Amino acid sequence: MTRKELFHHIKEKSSYLCVGLDTDLSKIPKHLLKENDPVFEFNKQIIDATIDHCVGYKPNLAFYESLGASGWESLQKTIEYIPDELFTIADAKRGDIGNTAKKYAEAFFERMNFDSVTIAPYMGRDSVDPFLQYEGKWSIILGLTSNESSTDFEELNLESGIALFEEVLSKASSWGTDDQLMFVIGATKPDKFQLVRKTIPNHFLLVPGIGAQGGDLDSISRIGFNDHCGLLVNSSRSIIYASDDKNFGASAKKAAANVQRSMKALLENYM
Amino acid sequence: MTRKELFHHIKEKSSYLCVGLDTDLSKIPKHLLKENDPVFEFNKQIIDATIDHCVGYKPNLAFYESLGASGWESLQKTIEYIPDELFTIADAKRGDIGNTAKKYAEAFFERMNFDSVTIAPYMGRDSVDPFLQYEGKWSIILGLTSNESSTDFEELNLESGIALFEEVLSKASSWGTDDQLMFVIGATKPDKFQLVRKTIPNHFLLVPGIGAQGGDLDSISRIGFNDHCGLLVNSSRSIIYASDDKNFGASAKKAAANVQRSMKALLENYM
Repeated sequence: MTRKELFHHIKEKSSYLCVGLDTDLSKIPKHLLKENDPVFEFNKQIIDATIDHCVGYKPNLAFYESLGASGWESLQKTIEYIPDELFTIADAKRGDIGNTAKKYAEAFFERMNFDSVTIAPYMGRDSVDPFLQYEGKWSIILGLTSNESSTDFEELNLESGIALFEEVLSKASSWGTDDQLMFVIGATKPDKFQLVRKTIPNHFLLVPGIGAQGGDLDSISRIGFNDHCGLLVNSSRSIIYASDDKNFGASAKKAAANVQRSMKALLENYM
Repeated sequence: MTRKELFHHIKEKSSYLCVGLDTDLSKIPKHLLKENDPVFEFNKQIIDATIDHCVGYKPNLAFYESLGASGWESLQKTIEYIPDELFTIADAKRGDIGNTAKKYAEAFFERMNFDSVTIAPYMGRDSVDPFLQYEGKWSIILGLTSNESSTDFEELNLESGIALFEEVLSKASSWGTDDQLMFVIGATKPDKFQLVRKTIPNHFLLVPGIGAQGGDLDSISRIGFNDHCGLLVNSSRSIIYASDDKNFGASAKKAAANVQRSMKALLENYM
């Protein structure tokens, strides 16, 4: 999917919401556990319920890997179920030397037809390059993450005076175009968005951390918007686990619609 | 496996070699492709051939993921096939926020019974903590990797005057004991081993980069040894793909035995 197409879907739906499919057998409604593939069944109903209110889906790989091979089957079925016009993110945070990164790219862009994959920048350019060889696919590089310990390394100042995450944004943004690269910037750090936009004004940001993690949609949107919207805001737990009864789909829809309503107003007023 | 047990196996075998199971369908001998599970069949024969000469096995997850669910089945069979006294490393380079890292820990320490997993440090302590909750299991944190682009971020100097990878070694080594934590230090950077040993004298180092990547066993061993050996040196391609004919097992054995012979001499002379 191109940046233009993504922006088109955002305008059409008045939404820049991405729903995180962090599907956990211990949290999904009990009645689904008797299904043949409870994970896929849950995802399917969540997708059906939320699809009018979001522009993308982001399964986090950890939840599928913790189920072994059957988790990968559920993931494969899920990605095949999601219609093409939705932007899909393999939240995998991979990163390895070139010949190995190539295999990860094959896993997510060929074996499974994801639009994008999240990548950890620590090992540098040659761990990202293989992902950039796929036309129409996106590499989403960790910049400043939403967790508390992002201060351990990401926010450390370099000799040059800027923080490590700024160096990541600035250096990594030169490895490809803004039609190939996005960056993860946590919603829990609204005070950093101005700085981020100074460094990478044109890139899409994938923003986790609203909802369960407490980030504020208003502040990050006002500062984060660019002329292509430039934001994909993810919410996982507060949407997909809005309730755990037989009406979980309706609850998820309501939660997603609520976020989307706020997004519509923000797009109209500040973009 | 405890550090004491690992050191016992190293002395017993006069080897600190770890064989990397980077099993790639396009590189394994053609006659295996007609097997029901070529990846497992290859791994099984490689393990049988090399087990007397090494103390551990390190499958890199990318090679298995690129095959989808069937790759995970092959990996699960492989890990079950490896005898308990061999140290097993899930080379996964994972790293995510706490509740997600917990799921990765489940995947590698519960669903599959690996002794250790490699972890990317970028997101900080809370992305490592969940792995440290498992007794007898190891977290192997990326320090200074063997690839060229490790200069992009890992070797950048911080405001404090030390390089990022040194800060990672120094900070992350305080998160657990040297019975829980190891660090990845690439063999391609022998000039950095002295500095590494100054920062973390007691930890085991997982050292990739000899063989196909060109690192030198002699130099890194002389500087890297500590009183528990303290090194696990990995070789993948130059052992497992030593030949691609029906005698690939014998060729792998010969390649592993060659490395082990050098290791025996180094242990006798410099440890």
